Amino acid sequence: MRKEINYNDYAEELITQLTKGGVFLTVKDQEKANIMTIGWGTFGWIWNKPILMVMVRYSRHTYGLLENAGEFTVSVPLKQNRTKELLICGQQSGREIDKFQTCGFTPEKGQAVTTPVIKECPLHFECRVVYQQAMEPGQLSKEFRAKWYKTPDYHVLYYGEIVAAYLTE
Amino acid sequence: MRKEINYNDYAEELITQLTKGGVFLTVKDQEKANIMTIGWGTFGWIWNKPILMVMVRYSRHTYGLLENAGEFTVSVPLKQNRTKELLICGQQSGREIDKFQTCGFTPEKGQAVTTPVIKECPLHFECRVVYQQAMEPGQLSKEFRAKWYKTPDYHVLYYGEIVAAYLTE
Repeated sequence: MRKEINYNDYAEELITQLTKGGVFLTVKDQEKANIMTIGWGTFGWIWNKPILMVMVRYSRHTYGLLENAGEFTVSVPLKQNRTKELLICGQQSGREIDKFQTCGFTPEKGQAVTTPVIKECPLHFECRVVYQQAMEPGQLSKEFRAKWYKTPDYHVLYYGEIVAAYLTE
Repeated sequence: MRKEINYNDYAEELITQLTKGGVFLTVKDQEKANIMTIGWGTFGWIWNKPILMVMVRYSRHTYGLLENAGEFTVSVPLKQNRTKELLICGQQSGREIDKFQTCGFTPEKGQAVTTPVIKECPLHFECRVVYQQAMEPGQLSKEFRAKWYKTPDYHVLYYGEIVAAYLTE
């Protein structure tokens, strides 16, 4: 059962979960979907649309997928304990393992996009990429650059228009 | 009286207010501060910091100010009716009028930055710019480009680390 929510009703829970272990970003190619844990992102209103911005480093399998897919979903564990799955999806690569299988997760058909969401999570956002931009390293504060980018493995910022937001039971 | 809040406690109110008239962005030069109304922005967690991202078009007086200032504040009307002031700060230019004076607003000393907040508003965020990037027009969806950028007056995106967040009475 899906229960539609206003895109903004769970902004605080989403941001809190980013800071406490992360949320699941799902992106697919023509064959199957892959999950990556993200701990950084922003949420808001741009171009008169609800926008969820996610960041992916060049080195990630998800980067190649997302460049082609043009859409993604975000599934949020909320109060569930998903420490193990968040670690698997953060530290391992979809180039080597099937993360849905390894985590025991079920891909559930998206509502407005063709990318699945994770059935076992209670909160979902479906997004289509409307803007993207690779980071310009020289524009970041020196302190953050030194701390987070010791190699040139920068992030690409993907701005997704939220085309569906809902809770599942 | 200032009452500190967790940066994330009012995310939903902030985003809702963006969509319903806007919020006040204050930026100063060495002499005085100027206010601009913004209706677009995002809120979240990047580089392990709370981040408020605001967008300013090249044509705005605030653009020139913000390029030099490196910091800004956002004051949110919440449930106040500030339709008139939001219109003034959205449609008029600080090159021509003093917006604090025209709106009857009082600049109140910032807590962690030297930019003031607007005393008459109940919710405030103080930010220092840690990243900024001019929009890359070719990367935006054609639909949005046609709708929002009929001239090359694009936005620059300013990512501010939230260094103070509080309510005032």
